[in-house]
Amino acid sequence: MITVHHLNNSRSQRILWLLEELGLDYEIVSYQRDATTNFAPEILKGVHPLGKSPVLTDGDRTVAESGAIVEYLIRKYGRDRLMPNEDSAEFVSYLHWMHYAEGSAMLPLMLSLYVMRLGEAGKPLHPRIESEVQNHFGYMNEALGQSDFFVGNALSGADIQLTFALEAAKSLGLLSGFGNLERYLGKMHERAAYKRGIERGGQYDLGK
Amino acid sequence: MITVHHLNNSRSQRILWLLEELGLDYEIVSYQRDATTNFAPEILKGVHPLGKSPVLTDGDRTVAESGAIVEYLIRKYGRDRLMPNEDSAEFVSYLHWMHYAEGSAMLPLMLSLYVMRLGEAGKPLHPRIESEVQNHFGYMNEALGQSDFFVGNALSGADIQLTFALEAAKSLGLLSGFGNLERYLGKMHERAAYKRGIERGGQYDLGK
Repeated sequence: MITVHHLNNSRSQRILWLLEELGLDYEIVSYQRDATTNFAPEILKGVHPLGKSPVLTDGDRTVAESGAIVEYLIRKYGRDRLMPNEDSAEFVSYLHWMHYAEGSAMLPLMLSLYVMRLGEAGKPLHPRIESEVQNHFGYMNEALGQSDFFVGNALSGADIQLTFALEAAKSLGLLSGFGNLERYLGKMHERAAYKRGIERGGQYDLGK
Repeated sequence: MITVHHLNNSRSQRILWLLEELGLDYEIVSYQRDATTNFAPEILKGVHPLGKSPVLTDGDRTVAESGAIVEYLIRKYGRDRLMPNEDSAEFVSYLHWMHYAEGSAMLPLMLSLYVMRLGEAGKPLHPRIESEVQNHFGYMNEALGQSDFFVGNALSGADIQLTFALEAAKSLGLLSGFGNLERYLGKMHERAAYKRGIERGGQYDLGK
């Protein structure tokens, strides 16, 4: 049985969505963020030493880190779905976006979140953070100018990875002006599998 | 011909190392960081819209984002080297570390670098950043307790990815106390291919 260790309002929501797209059976163990700090609870360290979510167990195998979980599930259960053929030009694009989502796009958002806690004292960093947001979200917005998906003409693991970055940006008020990204996010949210994942996962303020 | 768009003191050094491990021919186009801001020069936007390094071109194909470049090169030219068999348990570990390097380990370092620019004003964030450094580098230190490499008993793309994070941590003075990581980094720096990459790439203060 597949088990998802799921934290509310977190990256683990994307794993529920992916499992629904793949039509797999799974169970959820739920964790709640600390009401004051918004950090993950200490108890998650019992599942994986980093104490982060998502973590997935599949039989005796434990997989942590969003990108690794998405690749693991698609390679094991996707059977030619949600990933382009490795010999195609689109595979290079898939590799790019799969790594780009957490390796690049999330950085200006995480910086925003942290620096926001400083209030006025963080002001000297705002111009750099804003220019990085423009750079990255402008790049993604451009990429979606001619396609409904990040890779080719079909949903892939890259969409699952990137949708979370767009949701996080939206929750920070950083998505307006990027019309293609807003339209894309709306379409992802309309998918039946996405909706089922939200129902199963419970509270997810980022998807609003 | 393979061309690496290489920025001094940056993630592109790892791509030169990988190309040397694979014994491939390649050429380098060099870029220098701005002496005042330490940012990449604007001219890199002519190679890829993000204006970041590394970017690799291979014939008419352009690949950006470290993790994607490493996976691309290993899958195309590695021929069963630097990556475990996809059916093995080690492959899950490979996926984990490949995504973890830029998706998780670099975050507290990038936060450090940014918040450092604020001087005293950034102080309220220091405890959280320090605890994340301890969490992530403690985790990696533990992982290297019983092996010379991150995945199994041989060099893989994951080592290429993670060595940069360790070098960045060392340059910030954050690696002392993590004995396994210091030993590991020393061993990576002794590799002939690593040294050839440094010779080809020129200035690389992070490797000291």
